[in-house]
Amino acid sequence: MAKRKTRRSRNKILDRKAGNRPGHLAVPAEAFTPRFFLISFHDQFFEEKEYATYEQLKQRVHELPDARHWIDIRGYNSQGLFEKLVADFKIHPLQMEDVLNDYQRPKVEQDQGRLFIITRMLRWSAEQHILEDVQLSVFTGSNYVLTLQSDYDDCLNPLRDRIRSGLGVIRQRPSIYITYAILDVVLDFYFPVIGKISSYMEELEQTILEQPSKQTLGQVLSLKNELIRLRRIVWPERDKMNELLRMDEHIIPASLQIYFRDAYDHTIQLIDLIDSHKEMTSSLVELYMSTVSNRMNNIMKVLTIISSIFIPLSFVAGVYGMNFSREDPETGEVFRYSMPELYQPFSYPILLFIMTVLVVLQLYFFYRKGWFKSF
Amino acid sequence: MAKRKTRRSRNKILDRKAGNRPGHLAVPAEAFTPRFFLISFHDQFFEEKEYATYEQLKQRVHELPDARHWIDIRGYNSQGLFEKLVADFKIHPLQMEDVLNDYQRPKVEQDQGRLFIITRMLRWSAEQHILEDVQLSVFTGSNYVLTLQSDYDDCLNPLRDRIRSGLGVIRQRPSIYITYAILDVVLDFYFPVIGKISSYMEELEQTILEQPSKQTLGQVLSLKNELIRLRRIVWPERDKMNELLRMDEHIIPASLQIYFRDAYDHTIQLIDLIDSHKEMTSSLVELYMSTVSNRMNNIMKVLTIISSIFIPLSFVAGVYGMNFSREDPETGEVFRYSMPELYQPFSYPILLFIMTVLVVLQLYFFYRKGWFKSF
Amino acid sequence: MAKRKTRRSRNKILDRKAGNRPGHLAVPAEAFTPRFFLISFHDQFFEEKEYATYEQLKQRVHELPDARHWIDIRGYNSQGLFEKLVADFKIHPLQMEDVLNDYQRPKVEQDQGRLFIITRMLRWSAEQHILEDVQLSVFTGSNYVLTLQSDYDDCLNPLRDRIRSGLGVIRQRPSIYITYAILDVVLDFYFPVIGKISSYMEELEQTILEQPSKQTLGQVLSLKNELIRLRRIVWPERDKMNELLRMDEHIIPASLQIYFRDAYDHTIQLIDLIDSHKEMTSSLVELYMSTVSNRMNNIMKVLTIISSIFIPLSFVAGVYGMNFSREDPETGEVFRYSMPELYQPFSYPILLFIMTVLVVLQLYFFYRKGWFKSF
Amino acid sequence: MAKRKTRRSRNKILDRKAGNRPGHLAVPAEAFTPRFFLISFHDQFFEEKEYATYEQLKQRVHELPDARHWIDIRGYNSQGLFEKLVADFKIHPLQMEDVLNDYQRPKVEQDQGRLFIITRMLRWSAEQHILEDVQLSVFTGSNYVLTLQSDYDDCLNPLRDRIRSGLGVIRQRPSIYITYAILDVVLDFYFPVIGKISSYMEELEQTILEQPSKQTLGQVLSLKNELIRLRRIVWPERDKMNELLRMDEHIIPASLQIYFRDAYDHTIQLIDLIDSHKEMTSSLVELYMSTVSNRMNNIMKVLTIISSIFIPLSFVAGVYGMNFSREDPETGEVFRYSMPELYQPFSYPILLFIMTVLVVLQLYFFYRKGWFKSF
Amino acid sequence: MAKRKTRRSRNKILDRKAGNRPGHLAVPAEAFTPRFFLISFHDQFFEEKEYATYEQLKQRVHELPDARHWIDIRGYNSQGLFEKLVADFKIHPLQMEDVLNDYQRPKVEQDQGRLFIITRMLRWSAEQHILEDVQLSVFTGSNYVLTLQSDYDDCLNPLRDRIRSGLGVIRQRPSIYITYAILDVVLDFYFPVIGKISSYMEELEQTILEQPSKQTLGQVLSLKNELIRLRRIVWPERDKMNELLRMDEHIIPASLQIYFRDAYDHTIQLIDLIDSHKEMTSSLVELYMSTVSNRMNNIMKVLTIISSIFIPLSFVAGVYGMNFSREDPETGEVFRYSMPELYQPFSYPILLFIMTVLVVLQLYFFYRKGWFKSF
Repeated sequence: MAKRKTRRSRNKILDRKAGNRPGHLAVPAEAFTPRFFLISFHDQFFEEKEYATYEQLKQRVHELPDARHWIDIRGYNSQGLFEKLVADFKIHPLQMEDVLNDYQRPKVEQDQGRLFIITRMLRWSAEQHILEDVQLSVFTGSNYVLTLQSDYDDCLNPLRDRIRSGLGVIRQRPSIYITYAILDVVLDFYFPVIGKISSYMEELEQTILEQPSKQTLGQVLSLKNELIRLRRIVWPERDKMNELLRMDEHIIPASLQIYFRDAYDHTIQLIDLIDSHKEMTSSLVELYMSTVSNRMNNIMKVLTIISSIFIPLSFVAGVYGMNFSREDPETGEVFRYSMPELYQPFSYPILLFIMTVLVVLQLYFFYRKGWFKSF
Repeated sequence: MAKRKTRRSRNKILDRKAGNRPGHLAVPAEAFTPRFFLISFHDQFFEEKEYATYEQLKQRVHELPDARHWIDIRGYNSQGLFEKLVADFKIHPLQMEDVLNDYQRPKVEQDQGRLFIITRMLRWSAEQHILEDVQLSVFTGSNYVLTLQSDYDDCLNPLRDRIRSGLGVIRQRPSIYITYAILDVVLDFYFPVIGKISSYMEELEQTILEQPSKQTLGQVLSLKNELIRLRRIVWPERDKMNELLRMDEHIIPASLQIYFRDAYDHTIQLIDLIDSHKEMTSSLVELYMSTVSNRMNNIMKVLTIISSIFIPLSFVAGVYGMNFSREDPETGEVFRYSMPELYQPFSYPILLFIMTVLVVLQLYFFYRKGWFKSF
Repeated sequence: MAKRKTRRSRNKILDRKAGNRPGHLAVPAEAFTPRFFLISFHDQFFEEKEYATYEQLKQRVHELPDARHWIDIRGYNSQGLFEKLVADFKIHPLQMEDVLNDYQRPKVEQDQGRLFIITRMLRWSAEQHILEDVQLSVFTGSNYVLTLQSDYDDCLNPLRDRIRSGLGVIRQRPSIYITYAILDVVLDFYFPVIGKISSYMEELEQTILEQPSKQTLGQVLSLKNELIRLRRIVWPERDKMNELLRMDEHIIPASLQIYFRDAYDHTIQLIDLIDSHKEMTSSLVELYMSTVSNRMNNIMKVLTIISSIFIPLSFVAGVYGMNFSREDPETGEVFRYSMPELYQPFSYPILLFIMTVLVVLQLYFFYRKGWFKSF
Repeated sequence: MAKRKTRRSRNKILDRKAGNRPGHLAVPAEAFTPRFFLISFHDQFFEEKEYATYEQLKQRVHELPDARHWIDIRGYNSQGLFEKLVADFKIHPLQMEDVLNDYQRPKVEQDQGRLFIITRMLRWSAEQHILEDVQLSVFTGSNYVLTLQSDYDDCLNPLRDRIRSGLGVIRQRPSIYITYAILDVVLDFYFPVIGKISSYMEELEQTILEQPSKQTLGQVLSLKNELIRLRRIVWPERDKMNELLRMDEHIIPASLQIYFRDAYDHTIQLIDLIDSHKEMTSSLVELYMSTVSNRMNNIMKVLTIISSIFIPLSFVAGVYGMNFSREDPETGEVFRYSMPELYQPFSYPILLFIMTVLVVLQLYFFYRKGWFKSF
Repeated sequence: MAKRKTRRSRNKILDRKAGNRPGHLAVPAEAFTPRFFLISFHDQFFEEKEYATYEQLKQRVHELPDARHWIDIRGYNSQGLFEKLVADFKIHPLQMEDVLNDYQRPKVEQDQGRLFIITRMLRWSAEQHILEDVQLSVFTGSNYVLTLQSDYDDCLNPLRDRIRSGLGVIRQRPSIYITYAILDVVLDFYFPVIGKISSYMEELEQTILEQPSKQTLGQVLSLKNELIRLRRIVWPERDKMNELLRMDEHIIPASLQIYFRDAYDHTIQLIDLIDSHKEMTSSLVELYMSTVSNRMNNIMKVLTIISSIFIPLSFVAGVYGMNFSREDPETGEVFRYSMPELYQPFSYPILLFIMTVLVVLQLYFFYRKGWFKSF
């Protein structure tokens, strides 16, 4: 029950109301209250602060015309906010609709040198064995980067630390470099996610080999579904990076191309890894199926060994339990051929001996056929 | 029986008469009487009415040369009508034949700036678990959009409401924007259809895990067929949107490109979703197969446990049911080795005890092998 | 045996003699005597006749220089004929070789504005459940169409009727339109063929669900092979139509492009349909496999229910069939613990009662596990 | 053992020494002594002879400057020879290395109008059911064709016969036409090979349906491997022909293009055929699997029928074999409920009758379920 | 346990720390101490030496301005080294990061005529049946080649030998030729690796046919995973070679193109081989599954034969073990129909004879059905 709910709720796109006006900005019901973060910096300058309202943040940006700004808004629970953003940053309403509809494919759109990028931040839930992903929307201008996300948490802290510490070249570079850095960090976090999936697959493999249960296959197949979903997220990431790579030099300066190329390489590596892992789940299914078959074989072996040994013996015992009369009850004539074995002194021990020999022979036969090995 | 009929009748293309003259306008036998709707509007003006005849509608259109018109004809049962349309709107007979043959792939054709578009409206029948689709044909001109469909019902009411209410920009935009809006609404309704399929799949999964029957696999496979069919509908939708995207600016103005791009993105998302769901049906088949195997395993376990316990015991009982004589019937000589156990005071309770121990040992063996777990 | 022969003989390409000179015109051994048909027409004129010899037909063509001609030769049993055709119509020997080798892929070749087209006419043999196809070769010139086929029968009669009746525009159009019309009729007949395959698949599905036999899977798999073969025919049809579409305007006039586009759309629809049906055969295989498994389950259930009930009961009966002596045969001492049940007045009815209870409990257990349901 | 060896030795590429200098000409150890054949001809002239040494052949070629030559060298066992060839024909050492390494993919290389072509001659070994292939290397110049092969036998005799007899146009054509003719003959022999594979598959199908053994599946799978291998050979043949087709007119004259196009069509047909046959092997595997399952079903049916009939009967017999005493051994009191059936005159025949009825009922039940049909 | 560790540790990419600054040079913890090798040569000159420090090597390079140098650094345990290399050879930090992160896809990057190439050296571990691969990074300049690898061992010794011995043209060629030679040797070693995999597969096949165990399938599936991994390595090798092929003539001189083309052909052959082997593992899985099924069939046959023979016999014996009284215990009246067989002189031998006949008939039946064959 819980599981069912989860899968549906993660495919939010399937629940959205059809027939809405394009560009209609509907704030999701359960959205968080927005929080406003601003990181401003240039070569010799760095400032980082959270603002209570969008207006305060906006004013501070205007006070620092020479700096580059990373405006970082988290939580969507404010209709008015988005209309202001549309006006202030000259964003197309369709794009803002994409921001609010938290189920877009990763993509990049370019309009007069400004970029609109959608990427997805991934997390692997180790208890539920499912992927969680949050959409990160990025708008870039000449001296700012505007990021929007529905959650308060994200995976961008390593990047923020790098800006804070002033390490590397990030403060000297144009704002498009920050965009690159954001996309790069997001992609970077895909690798440990696949790493966790990989560990989980090895656990599953171990379980299948040791004590597979009815649930095990369900887990394998639901992991496969997660990988299908992951693939559905990473493919458009690749297309996106590729599109960025092929953009004009006034958007992506030549000196930064190598960075985007690097990120593009990462997406290809990701697809490689996902495809391999997806193929491996098929192997797990085959392994499971064969384990079930092997088990059946073992069950049948037990049955067959026991039956093959005791059914014939029972028959023999049954024969000597027959009541053929030794003599004619009327005339008293003795029937010499009527079960004479019953009246011999050593019949019983001889019979027991023969039975034992039979058992030993059968056991030897089954041993030779290797039926005792794989229990 | 009913099912068979349904599938065939939904593949109407397979029943059409071969060898007809191209451009031959054959009205389908069971078609509805046509109804004529007209929505006319410009910035300050809006009118919506149903007309009894095509001529009345046509006259009203001529009375409003400055407005944009959405001529909306539903039901095909009139030979003459289509010939008039061909003449009035300068439609190629082959295109009108496509309109009447209600099984066309989605496509777009362009001739001198006028578009002819075929799209398919989807519905998911929750009782029969099948897709129902109705073809919608759209012809666009400089100041009109002509839509034709065989059913009275459609999924365009949200769009009509938007025009009525004057919300958004739809009344200010050229008629190609209405075309976009129609295509967008049609595509929008694909998502809840896939949502329903998704729920249905989860039901099926639940059924497979809990109490799969002979019919369950049939349902999974017929769902797979529906997904194959859906894919066959959505792929050409994507090609169609792509073709529209690449059209000249005098057909699709630059300012509208972003809308068509958005719709194109939706078709890609749809294909993604359909492909994932199709892969998941394969998982369901595997799950079903493994459930059947597990069941077999369980059946065999019951048989094996019972047989392994009682067949040896029966043998033992059989042994002590043998009639080996204790003495020579003729000489009266006592055979000391002929079943002496029968003549001991505690043989019977000892035997019962040994049998009980055997049973306990076997049960322990089966318990250790985990055979009691997965019942 | 019969079946084997059929499959081979339908793959005639696999039997052809290797190493022949390219362009070598070898008349097949079992060919029919050629028959010569001529349909000549222009706007006001129509004539249709069968001629005894090629020379007579040729002369009549020369007598009608203003008409368009459809020269229709059926049956290949005449070496000389093909050499005359090669000379009269300036046909490349390699092309004429293709005509005679009745196993070519559909294709189109263009040489100085004249087209050489190979297409395949399909029939579904309902008794044998196989596809039969006959090659139709078409040469077009400025005022004639030359068609060659090895059989007397074909599927072009609807087209002939249309020309005869003068319906539509066919008589006004250039000879390339007749070519189109021929290809269109040929393709048109593919749809009912797939329709018949579809019905046959539903029959098979019914059989699998109701009473599958050893042969059923063979039939499914051989149907799959037929679909593979059909696909192998339709793919090049699509390529062919695509190539025709992209031809220069002096070969395919712009006004006819829409017709060829329509035919091209049909080939795409055909491929869609064939692919879906091919995927459905995989579903049928899975259904069959699961039916076999279900059957096995049912067999095992019968065995297990019967065995589980009666084997323990037999054991109990066996116990009371044991011959433990009630008293020491020598001393006459009574053994109190030696099967005292045998000497109680109500042991027997009590035992029967206990046995009945056991049976009822087991039946209830099996009923609870749902083993009686799916018989 | 034999089989294993064969497969390896056919994948010679896997055994080659790694790390050799590119262009290193290593004559294979077990190579044949080279034989030198020369066919020289022009319109009015034809000469064919085997020469003892390469020098003699070379001299004869120089004596006939106006003729076209087919220099045909078979057997590689001469280091010096290849160095002479490299020098005389200005062959790149890398190409000559490819000639000697008898496991190259088919390919074509072009250098200053001269072609270097690798193709593979196929044979189907009917006893071992494996493909044998020999590499044929072709170098073309303005007035010669040089072919090299490691075996004495080949499939080019039909072509030699055609040149000898002067049939067709081969003697009038430029040397590139001979190249085409060689490639065409080689490809021509692929069709009967597939024909033999096809027959073999039908045999296997028959075996599976009638009496499949453990080996049968092995044979099917190894045939599949052969088809995979065949595909690996034919795909590059197709690429090669395609590359030839797209070559400049001074290499492939326009008048010959149609011939190469024809050969290209053949490679496509080959790929079609191979792919179909490969898919059919999957069907064979499924057929085999289902046959094994059906067999298991039949085995279980036998067991179940016999057990279901006799186990309950045995129980009944067991009941009346119980030894409940008719009277109290001490008091002599008669127990009225202690197996009174034993003391009725017609109990035994009535019991036999009831047993017979039971058997008949069970047989009828099994008959109704169709268990007797498919034996 | 060991196995699990291995797989993870080979997918090092999955363990790397996410969120690092791009271009961050982190030396891996367990890296080897670097060793510095220099091979310098021109037409008349050759020198090869290991240096203790990078500075000494650098100085020697400066002393030989006319020679070409192969600078060969093995082991990464020195942070400072890489910063010096970045400075001295003007390497982009991102590229140097790729060198240090030992899990890159093979690739080539070109910057102002200098190449940066990543390739992977393969080894097949025969005990663990896994692929081991080490990354080799190559930087080329006008007169040097710089290679970096983390291991001391590599597969380049055959190439070093060739340079030492002065065989071939390697000393006359520009430094790009050495690059080619390195890539070629690396690729060359892929073939014996696949050869070993091929042998291993044949072993597995043998094991499956003879005595498959639970582990066998696991081995097959893990081999499949290795092949998937190998494919993931070779595909980008192919792309890399293709990219090199398409590079400008000032980077790859025309005279060397044929060499790169040759290497490109090798990568295609590798992919062919890997794909075939991957398909063959699927065949192995099918073979395994069918072997398991066959085994089950055999087990069931044993059970069925034994049960079918002895259960009916036991029943018969049970019948004659019944205790129907021959006479009324009270009146002494003889029951003529109460088991009269018991009181006939030859009943017992007749019964034994009938039983024997039954057994023989059953054995004949099973023999006819071929149940004794495939043990």
